[in-house]
Amino acid sequence: MKNGKIGFGVIGVGRIGKVHIENLVNQLPGADVLMIADVFAAELNKIAKKYRISSADTDYKKVLDNPDIDAIAICSSTDTHYQILLDAAAAGKHIFCEKPIDLSIEKITKVIEAVEKAGVKLMVGFNRRFDPNFRKIHDLVVAGKIGDPHVLNITSRDPGPPPEEYVRKSGGIFLDMTIHDFDMARFQVGSEVTEVYAKATVLVDPMFEKAGDWDTTITVLTFENGAIGTIDNSRRAIYGYDQRVEVFGPKGMVNVTNNKPDNHLYFNNTGIHMSLPLNFFMERYTESYLNEMTAFLECIKKDTPSPVDGKDGLMSVVIGLAAMKSAKEKRPVKISEVY
Amino acid sequence: MKNGKIGFGVIGVGRIGKVHIENLVNQLPGADVLMIADVFAAELNKIAKKYRISSADTDYKKVLDNPDIDAIAICSSTDTHYQILLDAAAAGKHIFCEKPIDLSIEKITKVIEAVEKAGVKLMVGFNRRFDPNFRKIHDLVVAGKIGDPHVLNITSRDPGPPPEEYVRKSGGIFLDMTIHDFDMARFQVGSEVTEVYAKATVLVDPMFEKAGDWDTTITVLTFENGAIGTIDNSRRAIYGYDQRVEVFGPKGMVNVTNNKPDNHLYFNNTGIHMSLPLNFFMERYTESYLNEMTAFLECIKKDTPSPVDGKDGLMSVVIGLAAMKSAKEKRPVKISEVY
Amino acid sequence: MKNGKIGFGVIGVGRIGKVHIENLVNQLPGADVLMIADVFAAELNKIAKKYRISSADTDYKKVLDNPDIDAIAICSSTDTHYQILLDAAAAGKHIFCEKPIDLSIEKITKVIEAVEKAGVKLMVGFNRRFDPNFRKIHDLVVAGKIGDPHVLNITSRDPGPPPEEYVRKSGGIFLDMTIHDFDMARFQVGSEVTEVYAKATVLVDPMFEKAGDWDTTITVLTFENGAIGTIDNSRRAIYGYDQRVEVFGPKGMVNVTNNKPDNHLYFNNTGIHMSLPLNFFMERYTESYLNEMTAFLECIKKDTPSPVDGKDGLMSVVIGLAAMKSAKEKRPVKISEVY
Amino acid sequence: MKNGKIGFGVIGVGRIGKVHIENLVNQLPGADVLMIADVFAAELNKIAKKYRISSADTDYKKVLDNPDIDAIAICSSTDTHYQILLDAAAAGKHIFCEKPIDLSIEKITKVIEAVEKAGVKLMVGFNRRFDPNFRKIHDLVVAGKIGDPHVLNITSRDPGPPPEEYVRKSGGIFLDMTIHDFDMARFQVGSEVTEVYAKATVLVDPMFEKAGDWDTTITVLTFENGAIGTIDNSRRAIYGYDQRVEVFGPKGMVNVTNNKPDNHLYFNNTGIHMSLPLNFFMERYTESYLNEMTAFLECIKKDTPSPVDGKDGLMSVVIGLAAMKSAKEKRPVKISEVY
Repeated sequence: MKNGKIGFGVIGVGRIGKVHIENLVNQLPGADVLMIADVFAAELNKIAKKYRISSADTDYKKVLDNPDIDAIAICSSTDTHYQILLDAAAAGKHIFCEKPIDLSIEKITKVIEAVEKAGVKLMVGFNRRFDPNFRKIHDLVVAGKIGDPHVLNITSRDPGPPPEEYVRKSGGIFLDMTIHDFDMARFQVGSEVTEVYAKATVLVDPMFEKAGDWDTTITVLTFENGAIGTIDNSRRAIYGYDQRVEVFGPKGMVNVTNNKPDNHLYFNNTGIHMSLPLNFFMERYTESYLNEMTAFLECIKKDTPSPVDGKDGLMSVVIGLAAMKSAKEKRPVKISEVY
Repeated sequence: MKNGKIGFGVIGVGRIGKVHIENLVNQLPGADVLMIADVFAAELNKIAKKYRISSADTDYKKVLDNPDIDAIAICSSTDTHYQILLDAAAAGKHIFCEKPIDLSIEKITKVIEAVEKAGVKLMVGFNRRFDPNFRKIHDLVVAGKIGDPHVLNITSRDPGPPPEEYVRKSGGIFLDMTIHDFDMARFQVGSEVTEVYAKATVLVDPMFEKAGDWDTTITVLTFENGAIGTIDNSRRAIYGYDQRVEVFGPKGMVNVTNNKPDNHLYFNNTGIHMSLPLNFFMERYTESYLNEMTAFLECIKKDTPSPVDGKDGLMSVVIGLAAMKSAKEKRPVKISEVY
Repeated sequence: MKNGKIGFGVIGVGRIGKVHIENLVNQLPGADVLMIADVFAAELNKIAKKYRISSADTDYKKVLDNPDIDAIAICSSTDTHYQILLDAAAAGKHIFCEKPIDLSIEKITKVIEAVEKAGVKLMVGFNRRFDPNFRKIHDLVVAGKIGDPHVLNITSRDPGPPPEEYVRKSGGIFLDMTIHDFDMARFQVGSEVTEVYAKATVLVDPMFEKAGDWDTTITVLTFENGAIGTIDNSRRAIYGYDQRVEVFGPKGMVNVTNNKPDNHLYFNNTGIHMSLPLNFFMERYTESYLNEMTAFLECIKKDTPSPVDGKDGLMSVVIGLAAMKSAKEKRPVKISEVY
Repeated sequence: MKNGKIGFGVIGVGRIGKVHIENLVNQLPGADVLMIADVFAAELNKIAKKYRISSADTDYKKVLDNPDIDAIAICSSTDTHYQILLDAAAAGKHIFCEKPIDLSIEKITKVIEAVEKAGVKLMVGFNRRFDPNFRKIHDLVVAGKIGDPHVLNITSRDPGPPPEEYVRKSGGIFLDMTIHDFDMARFQVGSEVTEVYAKATVLVDPMFEKAGDWDTTITVLTFENGAIGTIDNSRRAIYGYDQRVEVFGPKGMVNVTNNKPDNHLYFNNTGIHMSLPLNFFMERYTESYLNEMTAFLECIKKDTPSPVDGKDGLMSVVIGLAAMKSAKEKRPVKISEVY
């Protein structure tokens, strides 16, 4: 840490990597991005130049070798996470890792062990926890405003399906899309999931069936504290990105709906009309990405526990695997059956 | 009063008369409609039959002569109010009178004197005071929730203009339409108006100009307690009946918007869409008509002051006359200049 | 039918019976309530007097014997429905019957047969179908505005639990409370349910457990047309009666939320505040009761099919029985397993 | 312009100067902030260091002398604008100037002449025009969605009064606060104001009276195209910054309300509760500041007319002076009386 600034390296400069670089360079004076890495040299150099980052390498190990670097963000493809995580822990770097850590429970467990042994921070990029809407209702729940949660309802629909090649390697809807909602569920209810029932179907595009996946699902969760909940997902909402959460308890209920680009009302002779929700996660969750990186820097500086740790990264995958098993076997599945 | 029921007569069975008869006969067990009167015998008999009212006469004096009748509702045209009011007071009947009492300050004053002398109740039909929305914010203001009112904003737009022949004899927009808003202003602010500035123009239909009237106006009110307020009126809102009120003070602000027939949201690829407001006063103010008649019966039974008395009826006309003078002379007019 | 009016008898003058009598007598000129029946003579006579109904009897058969009576409304307790239905069909009366017809599939089937044989109309009192909110989104779905439904979400929470003795004989939450939502689900999706998964628990009051019932449930429905849906129920929402429905499809989404007594906003230094939803079904569904009876009279007059027929009454019970089986056996249950 | 980047200088690094520097340095790659100036050296150097700006001087003329600088932003106190504007025009720099240009019509006119003569762009910092809400309804109006505007309503209330010393030199509420609303009025209605009536009073704090100012006002505007409008202002809204606009026309109505930090609803046994509006202009108008600077850079690059030009800067002051005259003389004032 030089001049009180955290030396930072970013590995992977694709879509999400750029978001973090932008925030780290332009919005977060507490960090100093010293180095970036990506296997695609052209894009890497473009980004380095744009953000005046002095060092860039196609080999991420160079980032880990840099003694001025205190922390890294892993923004490369999921299949590369495992090795980078082990290497980074061994190099003593604090680690921010995009979700999911990995799709294998065994590997995630090893990562958690490595990180603990190395004594470095590991934060998983469940950015939605840092969205002002979801954070607000979380805080109200934690403050006891609704009492112990009884029922959770999450609606989470993407504006449109990803390309088929993405679907084929995504791990399936539960591990690619619902995984965010599983994390949100644990975050809001404040208790572990013990059982999952998932009803999954293909209504949007037969491509999903061909890829061995589903596009429309309902998941029922049971929590350790007795709460129950639903998640409904669709790969395509024609009206845009639909992200809503509601938590109900004996003392009240909290919910949040979608953000819109403006709040205008237009009244004419056919009705009252409003703008559609913000279209996708880059617009919808802008603030959350900045807030999560702020939280990561803070936990390093203050040496406090990671706000979204390895266990959080693990449990969302565990629930996803249980959901997939449930959808295939058409029966409720206990978490203890998969982990 | 027989069997604890108030013997009731209704004079005038047009649109608004029917509303009151319906409520009195079918919804208000505390009243017994014994007699109705109207100059149009055919309509009169139709209504008498429909509501099983045993007595009907084209001469309203027969209603006043009926010793079983304790109270009457005057729902005939405005130009007939004055004489009926004097006769009814002389006959010792409690009087519910549709707004306005009359358009002449002198005549209204005489009515108030006659009513006081006779010791009967006079209630003026400013039904909007009994609308659940407006009542709610009134109650919050009275409870001190916003402190002393500082600013009032009323938006009041009709869905479409009345026929030209109506306009010609209506007394003009300020005495026909804004009069409701003047009463609402006094009701919400809880203080008398001391000055009026009215800006009036014709933007909807040149017919209004020909009739010596306006169709689009802004009125600025100054109140005795220091508050100031605006009223904006239009004779035509293509999206329906627009009735909103807001009161602002040092401790907070209250407002109400329009009621809609349902609260559905429809999301498609062009936006989010809702139903238009309820289209006109018969739908929008249904509940208020029932509530005002309930209040009238109650003030008779409990011998409490009329909730909307002669002074209320007078002041709304006074403010209307001042507004008309202001619009014509293009300057703020003190209430003391007209009354 | 005398003077074009449907001769009407009402059997059972408890809470819901009174609602129908009030509407039939005071709001629906197309009907003439000639006779009412109830085993409790005192209440019966009070109601007969209040509504000036000339004939009242503690024996419902007298109503069926009356040749002037064209149609009846069965508003007595559920256990009496079956016999009255058979007798009424035999007497050739059109029948409006409160939900549920019965809790036995066998008996309901016999009722349907009897009614068909007699050639009389049978309408089941699923009043929520006639609520302006739910009707509006139904109409939008039928009009193709969202395309074929993909996902349905119903939230249905009562303001507070019924008394223990009611719970013990109610048939359980799925047949007493969720039954309305099962009917709503079929109504909105426009397709039959083929499978049910119900997760049921006790979080509100241990009394439900003692009574062998649950108080908090999530039900997942699968429909013949491929749609899937959730219903979440709670026996107690501290903020009032919570009744919301959402239907999502490829072309859009529709939803409705709760009705409130007024639409005021109050802004102070702690937040923006609104009124709670209307507290319970008598206030919330007032309009729906009038609309459903209007629809019943219309189907008799125009000799059109009953808008909510025996099959509708049957299927909601069938789904309820499947849900109960699912909750007990902790697995998804096919409708074909119970019917 | 080097490397296609506009060489930029910022004069004045107080609150608003910092906003522009932040946007120019971190968000707008099309500009290169080469130099900043401020009379307070300490703050100047702090900012220069923070944003890695190589050159800083307490004499703004040094900025104008710098040949690499194409455009400047004037963010110093209002009394300094005039001289800097003349000097900058003489130096051939494009000018972004915070509102108001000056409080003297004569001086503003000279600035406009100087700018025209020099052939440089002048953009005035009416940032609210670039707020997504206000821009949206402006665009709908321009697209003819409501027809020709008939009525405009602006509510504009600050969360709390400024310090007394600020009030004494601010030029009064109409030139300091309502000036934004005058510009908004012209922007939304798309027509010049021809007459002003202002009712002004002191209800918030007697300090305003002592300072010869008001704190609560209503302004009525008449436009060349026949539209009429209201603006209501208060120096203190306990619930936060209240910024709403509505435009009504023959084909419809558009309005926008306040932005909130989140859209949560909290239901408990006392009501439904929401977050307060964003508290003040730095949070509320964040996006607008970025958008306006983007527009300024674009008009330079594309050599298009300034989106908010000298005339816009002039007219808002002219209307403000007319409003002040009206409030003092208690009568409507024609714009032609002051300009």
